[in-house]
Amino acid sequence: MRKKVAILGATGLVGQRFVQLLANHPIFELTAVAASDASAGSRYESVGHWHLDSPIPKSVANMVVQRCEPTLDCEYVFSALPSDVAGPIESAFAEAGYVVFSNASSHRMDKDVPLLIPEVNLEHLKLTRFQKTRGKIITNPNCSTIGLTMALKPIADEFGITQVSVVSMQAVSGAGYPGVSAIDILDNVIPHIKNEEEKLSTEPRKILGTLVEDHIKPASFNITAQCNRVAVKDGHMLSVFVNTQKRISLDSIAEAFDNFNPLEDMALPSCPERPVVLLRAPDAPQPRLHRNLGNGMTVSVGRLVQTSETSIRFVALVHNTIRGAAGCAVLNAEVYTAQLS
Amino acid sequence: MRKKVAILGATGLVGQRFVQLLANHPIFELTAVAASDASAGSRYESVGHWHLDSPIPKSVANMVVQRCEPTLDCEYVFSALPSDVAGPIESAFAEAGYVVFSNASSHRMDKDVPLLIPEVNLEHLKLTRFQKTRGKIITNPNCSTIGLTMALKPIADEFGITQVSVVSMQAVSGAGYPGVSAIDILDNVIPHIKNEEEKLSTEPRKILGTLVEDHIKPASFNITAQCNRVAVKDGHMLSVFVNTQKRISLDSIAEAFDNFNPLEDMALPSCPERPVVLLRAPDAPQPRLHRNLGNGMTVSVGRLVQTSETSIRFVALVHNTIRGAAGCAVLNAEVYTAQLS
Amino acid sequence: MRKKVAILGATGLVGQRFVQLLANHPIFELTAVAASDASAGSRYESVGHWHLDSPIPKSVANMVVQRCEPTLDCEYVFSALPSDVAGPIESAFAEAGYVVFSNASSHRMDKDVPLLIPEVNLEHLKLTRFQKTRGKIITNPNCSTIGLTMALKPIADEFGITQVSVVSMQAVSGAGYPGVSAIDILDNVIPHIKNEEEKLSTEPRKILGTLVEDHIKPASFNITAQCNRVAVKDGHMLSVFVNTQKRISLDSIAEAFDNFNPLEDMALPSCPERPVVLLRAPDAPQPRLHRNLGNGMTVSVGRLVQTSETSIRFVALVHNTIRGAAGCAVLNAEVYTAQLS
Amino acid sequence: MRKKVAILGATGLVGQRFVQLLANHPIFELTAVAASDASAGSRYESVGHWHLDSPIPKSVANMVVQRCEPTLDCEYVFSALPSDVAGPIESAFAEAGYVVFSNASSHRMDKDVPLLIPEVNLEHLKLTRFQKTRGKIITNPNCSTIGLTMALKPIADEFGITQVSVVSMQAVSGAGYPGVSAIDILDNVIPHIKNEEEKLSTEPRKILGTLVEDHIKPASFNITAQCNRVAVKDGHMLSVFVNTQKRISLDSIAEAFDNFNPLEDMALPSCPERPVVLLRAPDAPQPRLHRNLGNGMTVSVGRLVQTSETSIRFVALVHNTIRGAAGCAVLNAEVYTAQLS
Repeated sequence: MRKKVAILGATGLVGQRFVQLLANHPIFELTAVAASDASAGSRYESVGHWHLDSPIPKSVANMVVQRCEPTLDCEYVFSALPSDVAGPIESAFAEAGYVVFSNASSHRMDKDVPLLIPEVNLEHLKLTRFQKTRGKIITNPNCSTIGLTMALKPIADEFGITQVSVVSMQAVSGAGYPGVSAIDILDNVIPHIKNEEEKLSTEPRKILGTLVEDHIKPASFNITAQCNRVAVKDGHMLSVFVNTQKRISLDSIAEAFDNFNPLEDMALPSCPERPVVLLRAPDAPQPRLHRNLGNGMTVSVGRLVQTSETSIRFVALVHNTIRGAAGCAVLNAEVYTAQLS
Repeated sequence: MRKKVAILGATGLVGQRFVQLLANHPIFELTAVAASDASAGSRYESVGHWHLDSPIPKSVANMVVQRCEPTLDCEYVFSALPSDVAGPIESAFAEAGYVVFSNASSHRMDKDVPLLIPEVNLEHLKLTRFQKTRGKIITNPNCSTIGLTMALKPIADEFGITQVSVVSMQAVSGAGYPGVSAIDILDNVIPHIKNEEEKLSTEPRKILGTLVEDHIKPASFNITAQCNRVAVKDGHMLSVFVNTQKRISLDSIAEAFDNFNPLEDMALPSCPERPVVLLRAPDAPQPRLHRNLGNGMTVSVGRLVQTSETSIRFVALVHNTIRGAAGCAVLNAEVYTAQLS
Repeated sequence: MRKKVAILGATGLVGQRFVQLLANHPIFELTAVAASDASAGSRYESVGHWHLDSPIPKSVANMVVQRCEPTLDCEYVFSALPSDVAGPIESAFAEAGYVVFSNASSHRMDKDVPLLIPEVNLEHLKLTRFQKTRGKIITNPNCSTIGLTMALKPIADEFGITQVSVVSMQAVSGAGYPGVSAIDILDNVIPHIKNEEEKLSTEPRKILGTLVEDHIKPASFNITAQCNRVAVKDGHMLSVFVNTQKRISLDSIAEAFDNFNPLEDMALPSCPERPVVLLRAPDAPQPRLHRNLGNGMTVSVGRLVQTSETSIRFVALVHNTIRGAAGCAVLNAEVYTAQLS
Repeated sequence: MRKKVAILGATGLVGQRFVQLLANHPIFELTAVAASDASAGSRYESVGHWHLDSPIPKSVANMVVQRCEPTLDCEYVFSALPSDVAGPIESAFAEAGYVVFSNASSHRMDKDVPLLIPEVNLEHLKLTRFQKTRGKIITNPNCSTIGLTMALKPIADEFGITQVSVVSMQAVSGAGYPGVSAIDILDNVIPHIKNEEEKLSTEPRKILGTLVEDHIKPASFNITAQCNRVAVKDGHMLSVFVNTQKRISLDSIAEAFDNFNPLEDMALPSCPERPVVLLRAPDAPQPRLHRNLGNGMTVSVGRLVQTSETSIRFVALVHNTIRGAAGCAVLNAEVYTAQLS
């Protein structure tokens, strides 16, 4: 018996990834797609503009798009709603008893809401006990945050982190559709993404923080982030400088990356063979070549260089609409389901 | 009376910029173009592949390409030779009495060779006194180095620098022609450029160093650099994190940038109105919009953020084949000429 | 005494080109910029997003944007209004006595409105005699049409045309701002541009038609057009197949192109040295290399191949926002002014 | 028992596609990879630069690259050799008894060599009877030719073709690696591809020709082709104008495309569900969205417009390194094998 699930905001870029990931899922059955009132009532394939290079799954193409109201026939909802409308809609679904797995930023920093990357902070799921609704809200982080935090986690665990500086080179799909104008990005780099630097400097500290009774005590290190948009379709690159508490060596850092696989034994459908993989080629990772590793769920790390006894730098790559969005939410739902049993 | 000048390596990307900048120069007369033996003997417009969007200057199109031998009819030579052959050829020209203004890396770190950006380290020209050849060699730095160092100079002067971390997003023209394959860069970022991180972490320290008798004592701060290639035609972006000795404020840093104009009174033909300009728009600088400021000779700075009492970050943009290469060499020659009189 | 002119729709992509071309014009004085009500009342540089790589002209940056109402202090207005609003606004200006030079499609096919490319159909200006308003409306064609028609004109005159098939590869700036989404065009070609094929198959026939009393009898040949959007910033490429009435030879066609320069003696400020230039390099024209020929006012032709005794094919390139839009309108105003005297 | 096969030129772009397609093939067993002498003797993964976004198959990564000499342990060889060396090497293999499936152009127009697209001209396989070697040579056409010819075939069969004009917009992977320089293609279109127009105007006529005794009588219609390179990674677009012998209607042409599936009953592993699919969306096909249809083996057609009683135009898209190269050769081998039994 597969659990019934629905998608809120199913017509956008992240919504389409949810459709792709859930159309033939072993433990979830996609029973409804919902979107804005403008789309409600139409067949899914007749609204919007499909952006993926595999066709719309046949089982979804003819579904009638529903309104984002908590009367959907399902247990879980996956939210790809825009942040400016997601907050109250997701709350209404949680009130009505649905478990909401949200990619929106609205509830991410709420005190009782887990900001979850299963391989990083599974224990934070316990925060949901303090939610007073019949249902629950579980969020996944911002796309860049997910890449950064997964790459930092093995280092934080083994060596402690005291400071992070990060420069991102982010794909246009991160801005949704239509998002970035072609005029702005062809032959260009835009050194600013609205609200992104704020998310990238706060969210990782919550995720890498400690559960203390009913809340998360954020990790104590500082993050400074400078975010850029580049002419790439999918895949956010992060150039990361890290200062550590303990002395490090290249070998010990590499070992930390190689050994990092905390969910290895859980057999979750969307869990990649390796959550983080350290690539040794001198010019890896690259968005076009490595964004799809682990079906887009693996974060690739490379260009690892030690810069002092307690500092390194490296490059990390995350597929922003899979691991960095829809894929993370689906994995969150899988791990949540596994915890129930 | 204009001084006679020639270009070595005149058919490559940087060589073409030299042609463009020197074809109608007020104080230099381009009398010869030289290139590899394969091109020698042919008319300039019949060899290679012109890459600029203004046509080949008519005065140059019909010049017969000469060999890179020190028998050219001129006083100065501008060298756009590839680094693997530049060293001995440039030395031969200096031996023969020519003044060589070189964009090649071969002699940059030589003890008695100035690594010159006129607005930054004009005093280093005195190093040429210690060269024992009849002629001289004066080099300009690597393209990224020029952008970084010009942006660091006002900060170094006012506040002192203790540490620099930099991430570059570099244009494909920096790799010459054919250089980067389209297959490698479309929908992609390449997080590695051969030898670039080494140059970017050593050259600025020489340029910002102190002339002590017959040599340069490098600046004492450390630079760590991670270099990326992006799908941009011209214009290198640098995301820079700087720690300072003295306390800073956003206003004091902005003032330092705004006041920086050391050659203002020299009236050199290639000197831009402003060597460094601080842009206040929230998404500036951008390669396509700002690389041509000051005819490509101005470094644009933006996204200035204070990150602690003694640290800031910002983005800098340099036109890599103008200010970052041919234009800097031409300005070096102009300032050298002015010093003579 | 320069004539006073204003720009309607001054904040869009074509509006910005008008600003660039008119800010320092020898015979026109830009006295007003007008735009939508949302922008009216603000300083020009504070609204919208400047897209050109030269800065906003200082004389315009501080102008207060006005409403598009026929109370502007000028004789001529240049219209870069969107087609869905241009029609009645332009009519109102004409009623009020202004001479309107419009880039919008609204009035292009009106019986008494010239669809003017000065080098092609100057005589069509006489149509304005039949306009019953105090002012006049003179339109320029669609951007692709201008490139195609200028390339066809020398052939039509010398050899007659019986059939044209054309495939366009059009730049993203042709769609305005924000226009094409980066997601749609990176690593992609879009084989459809709304309404473009219709314009490209009808407008050239009016332009190449014959003035008969009070109207234009369209040229009798058929045009079939397939339009594509490609990842180019500026510059529309057209691959053109033409059947002719008379027998042709490569030499006679080349001669027709080379001899075509009907306005040579008029000394109009925006008129390029050559309206159409036949390039002989085997891989010319190319948007990045040749779109700025003649300050963006020259159409480049290349890849000329004879395919039968009465058919040829070639490639033509037009800068879509200069010659293909604002530049053509300015030239129309210049030639109109010259005719007055 | 799978047949043993080897790849010649296994390190290039098309060679890598062969590796990807053959590493886990149901009826072929990849036993050897061969390449130039420079690579021979090294492990496959240590030579060259892997360009596909799926990793090198593990079974191939450690294979030792062999020389292209006819001593390989296999029955079939797939040749991705460059055309300037392919001819004699392939002949040597055929002499030695191997069956050569070649993507190189060297033998394509040989009188006794099939230029094979299984869905189009399976009967031409009979030409191999006239080859006097112990082995055989069977070629697949040029990448653009395959897309064009597959789209023309249903029309030719039902309505007859009298004239074809075609404009291509071709991906950079068609030029191999490093192939096109990034400098040449960013923000650009190159209206010339060496030898491509010749292939595109001659090969389809052989493929659509008639087997007469020991040779092919080419189809009698004329093809004129203008080829362009665009900034696309994979996927050649073709804008095609066709004149027909019989009267057509949109419906009858659509029906011809929809009914075209000659190999439907053969159950070949690489044969797509549909060789040609007519897409009805107004902006289809697009390289990024549709190149992978049918695992890259389906040609997508769209933008179908009737232009007269006996003429149409449409756009066709072919994945140039799969259906347009390696995939076609593999299908050729599959159909050849099926014919044997």
